[in-house]
Amino acid sequence: MDYKSLFTEISILLKAMDDRGEVASYIPELGKVDPGSFAMHLTSVENLGFGLGAMDERFSIQSIAKVLSLAVAFDLEDDRLWRRVGVEPLGSPFNSLVQLEYENGIPRNPLINAGALVVCDILVSRLEHPERDFIAFVRKLAGNPDIDYSPRISASEKRTGFRNAALVNLMKAYGNIENDADTVLNVYLNLCSIEMSCRELAQAFLFLAAGGVNPLTGERVVSVSKSKRINAIMLLCGFYDEAGEFAFKVGLPVKSGVGGGIIAIHPGNYSVAIWSPRLNEKGNSYRGMKILEFMTTWTQSSIF
Amino acid sequence: MDYKSLFTEISILLKAMDDRGEVASYIPELGKVDPGSFAMHLTSVENLGFGLGAMDERFSIQSIAKVLSLAVAFDLEDDRLWRRVGVEPLGSPFNSLVQLEYENGIPRNPLINAGALVVCDILVSRLEHPERDFIAFVRKLAGNPDIDYSPRISASEKRTGFRNAALVNLMKAYGNIENDADTVLNVYLNLCSIEMSCRELAQAFLFLAAGGVNPLTGERVVSVSKSKRINAIMLLCGFYDEAGEFAFKVGLPVKSGVGGGIIAIHPGNYSVAIWSPRLNEKGNSYRGMKILEFMTTWTQSSIF
Amino acid sequence: MDYKSLFTEISILLKAMDDRGEVASYIPELGKVDPGSFAMHLTSVENLGFGLGAMDERFSIQSIAKVLSLAVAFDLEDDRLWRRVGVEPLGSPFNSLVQLEYENGIPRNPLINAGALVVCDILVSRLEHPERDFIAFVRKLAGNPDIDYSPRISASEKRTGFRNAALVNLMKAYGNIENDADTVLNVYLNLCSIEMSCRELAQAFLFLAAGGVNPLTGERVVSVSKSKRINAIMLLCGFYDEAGEFAFKVGLPVKSGVGGGIIAIHPGNYSVAIWSPRLNEKGNSYRGMKILEFMTTWTQSSIF
Amino acid sequence: MDYKSLFTEISILLKAMDDRGEVASYIPELGKVDPGSFAMHLTSVENLGFGLGAMDERFSIQSIAKVLSLAVAFDLEDDRLWRRVGVEPLGSPFNSLVQLEYENGIPRNPLINAGALVVCDILVSRLEHPERDFIAFVRKLAGNPDIDYSPRISASEKRTGFRNAALVNLMKAYGNIENDADTVLNVYLNLCSIEMSCRELAQAFLFLAAGGVNPLTGERVVSVSKSKRINAIMLLCGFYDEAGEFAFKVGLPVKSGVGGGIIAIHPGNYSVAIWSPRLNEKGNSYRGMKILEFMTTWTQSSIF
Repeated sequence: MDYKSLFTEISILLKAMDDRGEVASYIPELGKVDPGSFAMHLTSVENLGFGLGAMDERFSIQSIAKVLSLAVAFDLEDDRLWRRVGVEPLGSPFNSLVQLEYENGIPRNPLINAGALVVCDILVSRLEHPERDFIAFVRKLAGNPDIDYSPRISASEKRTGFRNAALVNLMKAYGNIENDADTVLNVYLNLCSIEMSCRELAQAFLFLAAGGVNPLTGERVVSVSKSKRINAIMLLCGFYDEAGEFAFKVGLPVKSGVGGGIIAIHPGNYSVAIWSPRLNEKGNSYRGMKILEFMTTWTQSSIF
Repeated sequence: MDYKSLFTEISILLKAMDDRGEVASYIPELGKVDPGSFAMHLTSVENLGFGLGAMDERFSIQSIAKVLSLAVAFDLEDDRLWRRVGVEPLGSPFNSLVQLEYENGIPRNPLINAGALVVCDILVSRLEHPERDFIAFVRKLAGNPDIDYSPRISASEKRTGFRNAALVNLMKAYGNIENDADTVLNVYLNLCSIEMSCRELAQAFLFLAAGGVNPLTGERVVSVSKSKRINAIMLLCGFYDEAGEFAFKVGLPVKSGVGGGIIAIHPGNYSVAIWSPRLNEKGNSYRGMKILEFMTTWTQSSIF
Repeated sequence: MDYKSLFTEISILLKAMDDRGEVASYIPELGKVDPGSFAMHLTSVENLGFGLGAMDERFSIQSIAKVLSLAVAFDLEDDRLWRRVGVEPLGSPFNSLVQLEYENGIPRNPLINAGALVVCDILVSRLEHPERDFIAFVRKLAGNPDIDYSPRISASEKRTGFRNAALVNLMKAYGNIENDADTVLNVYLNLCSIEMSCRELAQAFLFLAAGGVNPLTGERVVSVSKSKRINAIMLLCGFYDEAGEFAFKVGLPVKSGVGGGIIAIHPGNYSVAIWSPRLNEKGNSYRGMKILEFMTTWTQSSIF
Repeated sequence: MDYKSLFTEISILLKAMDDRGEVASYIPELGKVDPGSFAMHLTSVENLGFGLGAMDERFSIQSIAKVLSLAVAFDLEDDRLWRRVGVEPLGSPFNSLVQLEYENGIPRNPLINAGALVVCDILVSRLEHPERDFIAFVRKLAGNPDIDYSPRISASEKRTGFRNAALVNLMKAYGNIENDADTVLNVYLNLCSIEMSCRELAQAFLFLAAGGVNPLTGERVVSVSKSKRINAIMLLCGFYDEAGEFAFKVGLPVKSGVGGGIIAIHPGNYSVAIWSPRLNEKGNSYRGMKILEFMTTWTQSSIF
């Protein structure tokens, strides 16, 4: 694929593009970012890199971390994981508490908050030092040892995260959380607080474009089959109740975060990260969505 | 891809495979089929054909017809279609009446009954002779002028289809059905009653593997973009609330029918139809599911 | 109780009272009424009558009829009735289609539309001439042989009643409607179209204040126990999802209709009918509610 | 009313009556009670007392406490209370978490757990020493200074009460809990742990039969109007989703607890407490329900 021409096109498009929506502010710390920030980085499976904007500036990856924690838990638990969390899209305008009650404490999928909390519960049970081991995994994937949690962000989130406390307690009532509710909640908030740049994100997710192998190191991260399955989950569940809309318009496995980041995978070809903090009314990056739609139309490179 | 070896493997697998579940019997006529029937046909975009079993025996395609009526309506209405029906997976253990109420008469997607009824309402409004024009479209796609509706099946279904009558009336209450409720219901029941063989189905759906062009005739059926979008909808919504499970295990756009048929698409490569009437508890062909899972594992050919 | 002073107080109150809300207009014919109309009539178990306003003008009683059809069906079926309809309040902001799906076609109570449709299905099964027999019952209760259905109103309602068609078809899908859907729907629409005056309504419902006996004729209409149970159902379910609010503020068994009528019962004492067509946002007569609240406060006569 | 003959009849009935169901055991401490225990005490507004069985043995009153905390909060807040909690029955087979989400953190009524937690939040905000002040209120009503909380029961409940923790956190997410989640939860668990005998319960609730005045002391507890309104709430909401069934069969304001206690009020006449620990499948005392149904049938004393 001619990525160079693609990035030239995108940089032209970007100048003409409006930017709408608000920066996430339910966590005070998140609201402090410059709303006009922009960065993008694509890494191909051949390890060619193409970037635009502040591609080395770090931002709060928030829910994007859920894919990486899923990869760790899936690798640890194999298909036992699916006894505790589903693989179906949420598909409902209502949030996961309702669904949790209907389905007896089993979250619909690992990319909604409830599912990610179950994944964190598994990390707490299975890893000796959950936070330390997880950040080591992320650093290795991204090839950068100074990626880290932001205690400032996680502390800010803790002061307002009553809904997550409700989720973890409800699942504990159903017997689907093994560890102490507060411990699991803390690990979850720490994971969401990780700060990475677009270049680091694209690098860290490249294994999902490369059949489960980190092309940088040749190391296998997850099996071929697990890599495909994580991509399928991202396509179906990566954008909450806008998943169908995104698959329809863009057609790539994807995950977004309220920090304004999006990571998308084209299996066999590339991973691409975009950061633009203004969010549409569904909570996904306004410009990020537009650029991904343009990209797959221009390159005719959706998976469909 | 070495389809020949693949079919040899499948024929070996098939001999060893158990077959479970019940034949659909809520429509008396459907219950009359031989439960042990089996057929499979793959057609590649190069128009190579590979088959197994009773590949020329016709069966009731049922919900598989919803993809073809969607193709017609999408072509007629362009994006106006999406004002009346969504593109999100159902994602709920509950059926579409609940969802229709929550979302004011707009079905979640065109492959659930409610959505397919809206599509039929569009055919009634836009086509001069809805049934005649639609069957002509199907015959041309499949390359066989004697494909037809089964009045026996649609009459049988009419005597028990009170839930569909509820759906169409509820949507009429919300203003999302333009024509007479009974007229729309009749068109819908006729569409579901079409009988086709696996060879005909694979041929008829080949345009979705070939970017919207019928490779047999070179004729464009829908635009490239529409073809991709129909595939995305099939992946997300083709298997009702088992959509996630199927994408996770098989990873292809798909649609099943309660007659025991399944059609799957590998964009750029092939379409494949399977018929095996025993259904699992979710209403999808038991052996059809197993063979598709084997196929994409063996060929490593999922879209992820 | 000093009803005379009460009515003097009410007539003073009425002059000072504002009147708000809209007249029901989803049925065109209902919208033709004079919005400022007012009537009230109380009949005590001693057969003393007290009235105000246009107490002999007839209006469309609409859902108020559901209590009378319930009385007939309960008398015919005894406790077998409760296999097909519940006695629990709806208690949900959502309407009965959602509830019907959750509870497999068994309506929550006989005063919501779905429950009243089941009651009509029973009348069709059990009465030789459902419409003729039912109107005879009402005429006898009210002591007036020229009370009748309004074909104008029921025809008007038939042209827009798609939601009721959805309800009856959905219940038929669950096996809870024995007769033809259209037949049941017609009986239902006819029942709701009955026109009565406040004086007639108060008279017709007096048996529920008098332990099941019509004090006018001494004839038993339903058993003591059935009379108490119908009152309990009215208290809990007579005002849809405003039932709690009404019990809290007024504290009497009650039923309202979208024609602006309300009937309330004080067991052992009186029945009272009010008509004032402007409806609050919940669909209950604005002035009717206010006057009933004043009445039970002034007389300290709630059942609590 | 001839209470003496009534109690003779009940004692005969009791000997012939079977006893079914299980003792509540989700809290280990509750499971230790003798399942065959029985007690009953009626106190008339004239302060005549009639009893049967272990009428002075104390048991865990559990949810019965919610009516007394409601009385305190209603008296403190007047109608401001209803901005934070509704007066509608739950009316749903699903529990209050679903409802809380649909209705933005406002519980349907003060007798479900969520509503009682809001009431406790008010006690924490308004009372200097919530626990001390509340138990003083109960002791005074019952006329016995040694009624107390059971730390054994509340500790037992704390170890398993994750669902209540979920409720209080969810309401805090909606801004409907002012105080620290754990503080409110502790007050709630303490209130439910109070132990009283049937004689004490009947005495403590007598003010609701007497228009808000404690007949023992002549002291006004709540206004006439508030007393009537609490009775209305008990009738509509006292038995969760069996409220309709109970109003239909018994017809009295009521509240049950999982400890096997039931308190019922006949406004103007009496309050009656029953204790029999085996619960029916809805969680209400099996024999308690039967005896109340017999009582109101025998005495023809329902409020309808």
